[in-house]
This record gives sequence, structure tokens and C-alpha cells, in this order.
Amino acid sequence: MSIRTVGILGGGQLARMLALSGYPLGLEAVILEPAPDACAAPVARHIKARYDDIQAMETLCDTSDVITWEFENVPDKSAHFLASRKKVYPPPAALAVSQDRFSEKTLFTRLGIAVPAFHTVDSREDLVNGLEKTGFPAVLKTRRMGYDGKGQAVIRNEEDIDRSLQLTGTHSCILEDFVPFTREISIIAARSNSGETVFYPLSENTHRDGILRYARCTFNDPRQKEAESMIRRILNELSYTGVLALELFDTPGGLLANEMAPRVHNSGHWTIEGSVTSQFENHMRAVAGLPLGSTAARGPVAMLNCIGAMPDREQVLAIEGAHYHDYGKKPRVGRKVGHITVCAAHDAELAERLEAIRRLLPDS
Amino acid sequence: MSIRTVGILGGGQLARMLALSGYPLGLEAVILEPAPDACAAPVARHIKARYDDIQAMETLCDTSDVITWEFENVPDKSAHFLASRKKVYPPPAALAVSQDRFSEKTLFTRLGIAVPAFHTVDSREDLVNGLEKTGFPAVLKTRRMGYDGKGQAVIRNEEDIDRSLQLTGTHSCILEDFVPFTREISIIAARSNSGETVFYPLSENTHRDGILRYARCTFNDPRQKEAESMIRRILNELSYTGVLALELFDTPGGLLANEMAPRVHNSGHWTIEGSVTSQFENHMRAVAGLPLGSTAARGPVAMLNCIGAMPDREQVLAIEGAHYHDYGKKPRVGRKVGHITVCAAHDAELAERLEAIRRLLPDS
Repeated sequence: MSIRTVGILGGGQLARMLALSGYPLGLEAVILEPAPDACAAPVARHIKARYDDIQAMETLCDTSDVITWEFENVPDKSAHFLASRKKVYPPPAALAVSQDRFSEKTLFTRLGIAVPAFHTVDSREDLVNGLEKTGFPAVLKTRRMGYDGKGQAVIRNEEDIDRSLQLTGTHSCILEDFVPFTREISIIAARSNSGETVFYPLSENTHRDGILRYARCTFNDPRQKEAESMIRRILNELSYTGVLALELFDTPGGLLANEMAPRVHNSGHWTIEGSVTSQFENHMRAVAGLPLGSTAARGPVAMLNCIGAMPDREQVLAIEGAHYHDYGKKPRVGRKVGHITVCAAHDAELAERLEAIRRLLPDS
Repeated sequence: MSIRTVGILGGGQLARMLALSGYPLGLEAVILEPAPDACAAPVARHIKARYDDIQAMETLCDTSDVITWEFENVPDKSAHFLASRKKVYPPPAALAVSQDRFSEKTLFTRLGIAVPAFHTVDSREDLVNGLEKTGFPAVLKTRRMGYDGKGQAVIRNEEDIDRSLQLTGTHSCILEDFVPFTREISIIAARSNSGETVFYPLSENTHRDGILRYARCTFNDPRQKEAESMIRRILNELSYTGVLALELFDTPGGLLANEMAPRVHNSGHWTIEGSVTSQFENHMRAVAGLPLGSTAARGPVAMLNCIGAMPDREQVLAIEGAHYHDYGKKPRVGRKVGHITVCAAHDAELAERLEAIRRLLPDS
């Protein structure tokens, strides 16, 4: 059957960019999203309901040829219900894994993918025992629902122990070695249900306060093959369909996997202008059963997130090679409201243009 | 005032591609379009009404910060009404000129832009007198409402005279010299209301049965500067804002202007993937008062129109460098339902990929 409509759980900027990339392919988007002012709503049919509303999910199934999501914290109940009624990509098993840092790291380890040493923590006693193995500093993370640095605490000494438990609340946690990495990078790959797999060039990422600020496309990165080998194992193990992102720490001893996101990823937004085929289009192609497109980079490219508010549109667009991406969201402290992609002919030009953009960003 | 909503008269594929290019810029589209299944409707707010419905136009004015159109045959009444209420770009004067081949060619001549010799025809007698000047063959065209080769007839001998008058009906016409051109080309330019002007590389175009089939981006074309000089005179004369296309015949004696289109143009569809900034984005930038983007080509690129029906999506997307553009329209003989853009690293590769696409087109 020829896929014509793609249902998306969630209606944020990832859904918006997925929807925009689908229309030229002849794919219409339908979102299931409770927020009435969802930023994907202007470019998709909008079913306004909670993610676990059975009737809304039935409507989504009835109006979609295939279903996907833009975030990994889809309620279990929803994933099962949808998968029982309709083709759902990526496979719900990928959600289950990525929703729990312990399952995730256990899978990585089983697949021979190196990770920082980790220990489960369900009590203060577990934490103290874990710290004996990791030493200081170490990182305590909630197993579930963490994102953008939320639900994490660095423990630098004994005094930090109780503060870290307050921060992570009553959740189950894992304690990890603090990794003295040289770079944070990510690899984004797409796999079709026939097993065809493509990889984007590694992205080099800079976070601040736990939020991604800057992502740069690398060329012929020495870690490219190592990262591809890691993500390929995950894709094949899960019989994955769609785009998958894997965040990695680069250390002198090799790459360590941090976490995966079974969806399009913020560190791949530069692929819209920077690659022959964007991560959004390749995700839509994959879930619609279409051949994947080339992931080749078209030249030096990087992306800056707009956090809190958009920079002045006229000033940004006056900079050669700058591409403005306004998600149509209301400004709010700490909120991702858009991004700016910058293309250039060579690295020095890229650096110059990025510097000009940075000066315009309210919070860069 | 910061422009956030762009009203578009018309809801076809040009409106659809304008709308898609606007969202990243933070611009929402509203279309005024009578067809309930308008192909721009899934990506825009849709006011379903005739183009001259006063109440609908009021709604369009109330919901838009600025108004534009996707076709030049906007009713006079509508153009005047809208312009009296709201900022309208391109200027309605450009519509008036382009709606009538006689006004158009008169303007071109006044601006020193060479055109094929032409004569007005309001009767059989005018036609016979005109043919004495042009000789055979000559081309009779209705002054108004011609597009895609409709309302045109080539007159090769005396027997063709009455047939041509039947074909063009009771309309006022112009009779033109038949131009033995070597190439059909077009130049597309964008001008902002501050007078900033950018030009795309010339497009080399191939028509069949009056319909554009194929358009190819040229590099350093020897006619580039000549064409830029022509279109620049029109842009400045009309204090133009937005994208303007000028179709030209290349002849051994120089370029001759055929007609202009005060809007984005089919021969510029390759700019979506082929240029740093597409014609659609530059039109939206211009009407929203934003700085224009670079028109530089990113490499060899060409476009094939899909006439009547779309080619098989899977087969097209399996060809490297192919970009699929389905307008979401029902198949119908002679109808433009989509286009395929092909990018490549060099000309030979482009030719090879184009040939592979042509084999998949139902009517190429």
C-alpha cells in the first residue's frame, strides 16, 4: 500500500519539521497533541487530546497509514494500543529501551558498546555503595523522564550526596562514572524496514546548563567509523525503522555511549540545509517504506539553538548563509524556540558567520 | 511591524511551496481559493471563496499582515480592493501589465528591452494587415488569459488565418513575428522594497505542447548579464517587491523578451534544492520586508515537470540526487501534478540521473 498519511504522537518542533519535510513526498501529517497552540498544528491535521486518550488514538489510527512519534516518553499504554492497530515505527521496543537509562545501558553493554561504568540506585545505601566504586566525581541520573539535563546531579564530594537525592527525587536512578570527555558528539542514522542503513557525518555538540546550544557537522571525523559501528548494532538488534540518534562521549580511550534517542534529534537540525537529504525527510521516507536519501554533507555547516526567544529576524537574515528556523513558539526562559543554521564555503567563513549570529542570540 | 501572516490569492502548487517556505521564517500562510481540495490547503489556513468575493477578501485582509498572489490573472476588482486595504506585493501595476500582452510588450519596448515585432489584432482585417508586415510564419496570441500555450496559434500560410481566429476566439489579440530562437531561457529575480535586487542563474527551458517540461540551471551563461539588465529595468520601473520571472528567446542577434510573470515561476522550481535560498523563500522574504537570501547555485541541478500523473515514488527516490515534489493533486491529462529536481556533482552525472528519471515519467 502506498503510504499517504503519517500520524505523529506529539506536536512540537520535531513534528513540525517532520510534517514540512513530508509534503513534497506526498505525505500528509496528522498530530495527536493536547496543546491547542502546538507549533506543528499550522502544518498538520490536529487531534487535540492526551497521548493516552483511547478515542483520540483510534482517530489517529483511522486517519493515518503509519504512525511515528517525535519524543521517546510515549506512555506504554499508548505504544501498545497503537502497535496493536497500526504499523508503528520506530518499533515500540526502542521506546521501552530508551525510556530507562538502565535498560539502555544494559543493551549497549550486551551489544559490546562501551559506556561509562554504571550502578543502579534505589536507596541512599545503594548510592553510597556505588560511590565507593566510582569515586568522586560521579553523576546521579533518574532512570526515567530525564531530558535537557533535568533529573541529573553531579556529586563532587560527600556533602553532595543528600542534595543529589533531593534533586533526583524519589525516582530510581543510576550512578555513573564522571567521564572526562574531550568532546560530546552524536551520530544520527536512518534505517529502512528492508535493512538499508545510512549514516550522517558526526555532529560535534556543545551543551550549556544541560541544553544543546551548538552542533557542528564534522568531515571525515576519525571517530566516524567507530560511531557507525556502535549505532549499527543498535539498529539491527532492534530491527529498527526510522531515524535514531546516539549521543557519545569522545575520550582518549575511545567512544563511550551516553544515551540514544529513537527519533530525529536536535543535533541533526543542520541536515535541513547541510545535507542532500535531511534527517526529517529520511525519517519520513523510512516510516513510509521509501528508499533513503543521501546523507552527504553539502559543505561546512553548523547550527545554533535559540533558547528563550528568537533573535531579530532581519538581522539574522542579513547574514549570508544564515537560515532562520522559527518554531512559532511563545518565548519562555530556557525554552527551545528555534534554531539558526549557517552554511559556508570553508571553515573560516563558517566561523565568522557563526560569530555574527552569536552576537544576535539573546542567550548564547 | 513584524510580518507574521502572508495572505495568498490562489491555492495551487505555487501557494503550497510558498507556504512551506514561509514557516521556518516564522510566516504563516492564509489562502483565498475557491477549490475545496486546493493543494495548498493542508499547509495553510483556507478561506474558501471566489477571488472577487468581497467578504472573503475582507477576511483575508483581517487575517494577513501582507498580501501576495500565486498567479497573475487576479481580477482587477480584487487587486484594487485588496490594495486599498492592505499592503499588496508585487505592486498591482505589475499585474495590469502582465495580464495584457500588448501592455507588456509596450512596456518592454519603452524600457529598451527587445521583443519580437508585434501588432494588435482586433479584426480579420487587422490580422491580414499584420501578416503583410510579419510574413509567414507568425504567431497569433490572445492579449489576455493565455497560459501554458493556450490561446496561441502559429500561422504558417493563408489557410491558417481563419483557423487561428477560431482558436483565439473573439478576444483581442496580438500578432508576433515567429522567432527562430536557439534556446528558451528565463531569468528569475527578487527585489525587496528597499530596492535590494538578486538574480538567479538563467534557467534553460524546454516546452512541449506549450507546457514546460524541463528546466536546467545554467552556470556563467554568456547571456546572464544581458538578461539581468532587462529584468532589472522592469523591476525598477514598477518599484517591484517580490519575485519576478522573465521568459526570453535566445537568438543570434541577442535576447528577445517573450513575457513576464509577476510571481514565482515553474522554471525556478530547481532553486528549492539547487540554490542557497529558493525563489519561494526569497518571495516570502521580500513581501515580509526581510533581507533577501543568496541566489547562488549549489551545483549542477535541473527539474522535470510531472504532467498528468506522478511517476512511481519509490523508483524516483531510489535514484541518487533525486528530490520528489508531489503537489497532492489528482491526476488529469495535461495537468502539472508535481516535479522532480535532480542534483549532481558534475554535468555528466546530472545527465545520467535525468535520463533515469525520464524513463520513469509517464509523459516525458
